[in-house]
Amino acid sequence: MRVEIWSDIACPWCYVGKARFDKALDAFPHRDEVEVVHRSFELDPGRAKGDTVAVLTMLTRKYGMTEEQARAGERDLGAQAAGEGLDYLTEGRDHGNTFDMHRLLHLARERGKQEELLALLYRANFADPRSVFADDERLVELAVAAGLDETEVRELLADQARYAEQVRADEREAAELGANGVPFFVLDRTYGVSGAQPPEVFTQALEQAWSARTPLTPITTPATAEACGPEGCAVPEREIGA
Amino acid sequence: MRVEIWSDIACPWCYVGKARFDKALDAFPHRDEVEVVHRSFELDPGRAKGDTVAVLTMLTRKYGMTEEQARAGERDLGAQAAGEGLDYLTEGRDHGNTFDMHRLLHLARERGKQEELLALLYRANFADPRSVFADDERLVELAVAAGLDETEVRELLADQARYAEQVRADEREAAELGANGVPFFVLDRTYGVSGAQPPEVFTQALEQAWSARTPLTPITTPATAEACGPEGCAVPEREIGA
Repeated sequence: MRVEIWSDIACPWCYVGKARFDKALDAFPHRDEVEVVHRSFELDPGRAKGDTVAVLTMLTRKYGMTEEQARAGERDLGAQAAGEGLDYLTEGRDHGNTFDMHRLLHLARERGKQEELLALLYRANFADPRSVFADDERLVELAVAAGLDETEVRELLADQARYAEQVRADEREAAELGANGVPFFVLDRTYGVSGAQPPEVFTQALEQAWSARTPLTPITTPATAEACGPEGCAVPEREIGA
Repeated sequence: MRVEIWSDIACPWCYVGKARFDKALDAFPHRDEVEVVHRSFELDPGRAKGDTVAVLTMLTRKYGMTEEQARAGERDLGAQAAGEGLDYLTEGRDHGNTFDMHRLLHLARERGKQEELLALLYRANFADPRSVFADDERLVELAVAAGLDETEVRELLADQARYAEQVRADEREAAELGANGVPFFVLDRTYGVSGAQPPEVFTQALEQAWSARTPLTPITTPATAEACGPEGCAVPEREIGA
């Protein structure tokens, strides 16, 4: 079974929702047969790389909140994060473009390090006062800590084309699947869960998707197959001894 | 879309079938959105590691063919392989246990090198007179040529437990999906193709699976979601300014 999770590193509900999903997954009896894939979704793709802004300023400017509303929202998110055992800086965080992080996450997937890198990026953005948006060195540090090769990481960051198409393809797919926001969880391309739902909802989704696994529809009948099995390789009779 | 291919390196129809599938995939308009995963299936799991036998001898002993039938079968396979542009040694090949190759293919998948390693293993087994079954050094050579780390490869080969469970899980899944032989192709866990079918059959399967992609069934309604979108992060109203 496969669970794809569209999310953005700059999305607090993704950070919280991932922890809630993981809680459900860890307790799922078929956990070892579930593959989890991170998919890219940028909340602020129009912001230039390196153009950072304080989160509280962004909330008041972009979404028209008063400063009190923005602060209260962040405190609420901090409380929700704490409820999942996650650290969360309610003040002092900044915001920026996440395109390079998504490109790195695609490289990390190919190297079997995606889960590690995503966890480090979330933690760095939400719980560490150092910016993940200001320069490449912080991203290099985190990618290497996740187990990626430093040279390969620097090459990726220096070439904006690398994995760009994969990020865009994920974003197109999110739109096709009807995701307007993140986190967005897709199970076996059949069931969708939107938002940082409680672990019980993820448990229900995992159980439902697991029990809905259906027999395959054969495109061809096995009888005609040129195949090898425990009894040997089927070679059409006409050709044996011809 | 995802295509999983159960196969064995010792299976000639898998070698031929993979080339036919690749031909269909290369011409498929949505090729970039298709992920291909190799799954393990051992044709001769009971054979001890290092216990090698000439293919022609194995065919006469295990399957009760006459030597003429065995030779004719191999010539036929050679012709089928040649039809796909593949080299094939109709004489002089040996046969053995493929468990270690499947374990290496699982490591290769995690390192983004599975396709490369599978192609090298097929070629080494079917088109190169050197044995891939006789000792570990040949496997080390091929795995390193595919881009894997030599130390990691040697550690895997020295420890029979590494990725053993992944090989066994693939084989259990093949049985659950109804595969009695290989190659066995599964598209989005919905459609199955058995055997080294002509490229047209794979084209049909790809098209059918592509058009059958269905809208997701929501486990939850988006309206209740704690999520972030282009308009900001949804924070329940009661908490703003509380």
